[in-house]
Amino acid sequence: MQMFFTPETELRVRIGGFQGALKKKGLDGAIISQNVDLFYFSGTTQRSVLYIPQQGPPVLMVQKSLERAKEESALELIEPMHTPMDLKRLVRKHGIDSPRALGLEFDVLPVAHFMRLQKVFPDVSFSDISLLIRRLRMVKSSCEIEQIEKAVGVIERILFEAKEMIREGLTELEVDGLLRSLARRQGDQGRLRMRGWNQEMFQAHLLCGKSAAIPSFTETPIGGPGTTPAIAQGAGYKRIERDEPILMDLGAGINGYLADVTRTFVIGQLRERFYQAYRVLQEVETMVESEGRPGILCSHLYREAVRLAESRGFGEYFMGFGEGKVHFIGHGLGLEIDELPVLAKRYHSPLEEGMVFAVEPKMVFPGEGAIGLEDDYLVTSHGLRKLSHFEDGIIHL
Amino acid sequence: MQMFFTPETELRVRIGGFQGALKKKGLDGAIISQNVDLFYFSGTTQRSVLYIPQQGPPVLMVQKSLERAKEESALELIEPMHTPMDLKRLVRKHGIDSPRALGLEFDVLPVAHFMRLQKVFPDVSFSDISLLIRRLRMVKSSCEIEQIEKAVGVIERILFEAKEMIREGLTELEVDGLLRSLARRQGDQGRLRMRGWNQEMFQAHLLCGKSAAIPSFTETPIGGPGTTPAIAQGAGYKRIERDEPILMDLGAGINGYLADVTRTFVIGQLRERFYQAYRVLQEVETMVESEGRPGILCSHLYREAVRLAESRGFGEYFMGFGEGKVHFIGHGLGLEIDELPVLAKRYHSPLEEGMVFAVEPKMVFPGEGAIGLEDDYLVTSHGLRKLSHFEDGIIHL
Repeated sequence: MQMFFTPETELRVRIGGFQGALKKKGLDGAIISQNVDLFYFSGTTQRSVLYIPQQGPPVLMVQKSLERAKEESALELIEPMHTPMDLKRLVRKHGIDSPRALGLEFDVLPVAHFMRLQKVFPDVSFSDISLLIRRLRMVKSSCEIEQIEKAVGVIERILFEAKEMIREGLTELEVDGLLRSLARRQGDQGRLRMRGWNQEMFQAHLLCGKSAAIPSFTETPIGGPGTTPAIAQGAGYKRIERDEPILMDLGAGINGYLADVTRTFVIGQLRERFYQAYRVLQEVETMVESEGRPGILCSHLYREAVRLAESRGFGEYFMGFGEGKVHFIGHGLGLEIDELPVLAKRYHSPLEEGMVFAVEPKMVFPGEGAIGLEDDYLVTSHGLRKLSHFEDGIIHL
Repeated sequence: MQMFFTPETELRVRIGGFQGALKKKGLDGAIISQNVDLFYFSGTTQRSVLYIPQQGPPVLMVQKSLERAKEESALELIEPMHTPMDLKRLVRKHGIDSPRALGLEFDVLPVAHFMRLQKVFPDVSFSDISLLIRRLRMVKSSCEIEQIEKAVGVIERILFEAKEMIREGLTELEVDGLLRSLARRQGDQGRLRMRGWNQEMFQAHLLCGKSAAIPSFTETPIGGPGTTPAIAQGAGYKRIERDEPILMDLGAGINGYLADVTRTFVIGQLRERFYQAYRVLQEVETMVESEGRPGILCSHLYREAVRLAESRGFGEYFMGFGEGKVHFIGHGLGLEIDELPVLAKRYHSPLEEGMVFAVEPKMVFPGEGAIGLEDDYLVTSHGLRKLSHFEDGIIHL
């Protein structure tokens, strides 16, 4: 299998867009340090720092591995870097002699690294470009959409196999292990990245019955017990029983890009109340599908979803219960699982063509369990295109 | 299976040690924000911030989930926190009225969070306490050692089952998936944490033949191709063949604590050169076992290992080749896979009783493959105790 490298044309468009934003912000350039942003702008995550001047070609300064960075990145200027002073020299060589204002990723860059950069560039004023990068990454190219569709394909094949795999008496952990194994066999990249501070994301949340109603630290409606308070999320030791909802929230990554799909399974039958609640989740997706198009505010879709859930008598359980409740119904998808846009109470930006997001209506019934539905969508000029196509009802085994 | 909670006595000793260090540094207190440090001092990773004053009880301020934090943490003072101003109020309530000097984890805390804290506490001077925390965490209690031994047990059972599982023609990814599945079935926590900026660690590095000789960004002698430059490490699409080294570097986590063990497998026979190289790896472990004891400098063990490899004619390949070479032969183990001490060229601190570390001599032959051996050790008053006991020769399948 040939490894997929980001095409040079992709990088050129991304860097062009970013340089436009730097200019508007009055910055001479930016120093990109974080793995994911590095990959977005250079096509590699080899240990390096990328200097993007406001004008002219960027320079990738590599610590390890230079050979691999040169193979993976379509950028023209790739130089070795051994000391912080190399960084200064290379920025001068390829940018302007004495930059005054540079951008950094304040949302993820650790303080210690920031202070080191302040020492290297004592005359520079640094400012935050996280939002600028996240906004740029929010709108996907057709090349990026293709990768997300491949990741959706991985999840759908797992869901198909899961129908044969889930059996009464298996622990959540056993099924979780099998899901990871199925994902890797299909070339899943083996890791879901999340940008938020202290946020970590499992590739699968396989939770049955009351286990799925346990909240946790993550910014998600579903937490799960995990095996330890040290990693308090996902599968635990509970065994799958008949007549309880089995929630399967799956992520997968291909060529860096993520998809995120949830389905609810049951062996036997659920209480009628769960079926009623599930129909509300389907109504929420249908509402988003019919209202979603460029120009619609994300907060509007969130509000409509909450209104729907409330009007059907499920407001209390929608998107989590009690302190576990979250105030969004969807999130952007790309190289990270928590990209923009967020279909959230306080996110008042409009949908734009090229955005890709997951809509994940869920209901949590404390002490009983959770049901969920999640699909991935692309915003096109005339509305939403659904990227995931797996049967969307409760799946009876 | 009952979840394991950190006992109150453990927390008291850790916090007492930390407060002594704060006093020496002249700090009024510290604000602990990172998941892993939070867990170490409070027993929970629920979304929260922990204020540890120089004297008196610490206060855990929880955003989500308060209920779960109260269940998991043996600390006495646990309060809800909704806004940054709650933080200020709670620090005043439980600490001193106007702290002047506070410590923060500069090595991991993002700049944006730092700046928010600067706004909340405009009169406070902040300084870095990362090293202080890492040094404290470096010496393990018997409770911590027990958890690491459980994690070793998980790995050894996987190695045992792997002997039946590895077959010619399977791809690295297929075996990697099976390894993940085996780990989870045994209660592995599902994630290996690494502290270093931009460092990410897979639970298994399953690499065969030339695949194992591909360097990457990680601070490890072995990188691996991965499936994409976006996540450039670990297993790829190569199929296992006869007569090539199959490297299996496994991590596992139980109750937060990690173990790390490597073995080399082969179907058939290796070239004589690989056997010669492997004997050097065994000699390195034997040397560390006989010289390692409290007081010995970590850099001494590193230097001796390099000297050994060079004297046997393998200096060039030891701990990586060319730009892939790393300058350590072992690393501390605990809640993170890159803890102190480091058996490294430039780490001149002495071993201390209670330290736990992995020794991982490896040889990389470019274009051909890699062989490796890795075991976990505890420093006792009279020398090293080996925690991992799996057969330590090349394993013929």
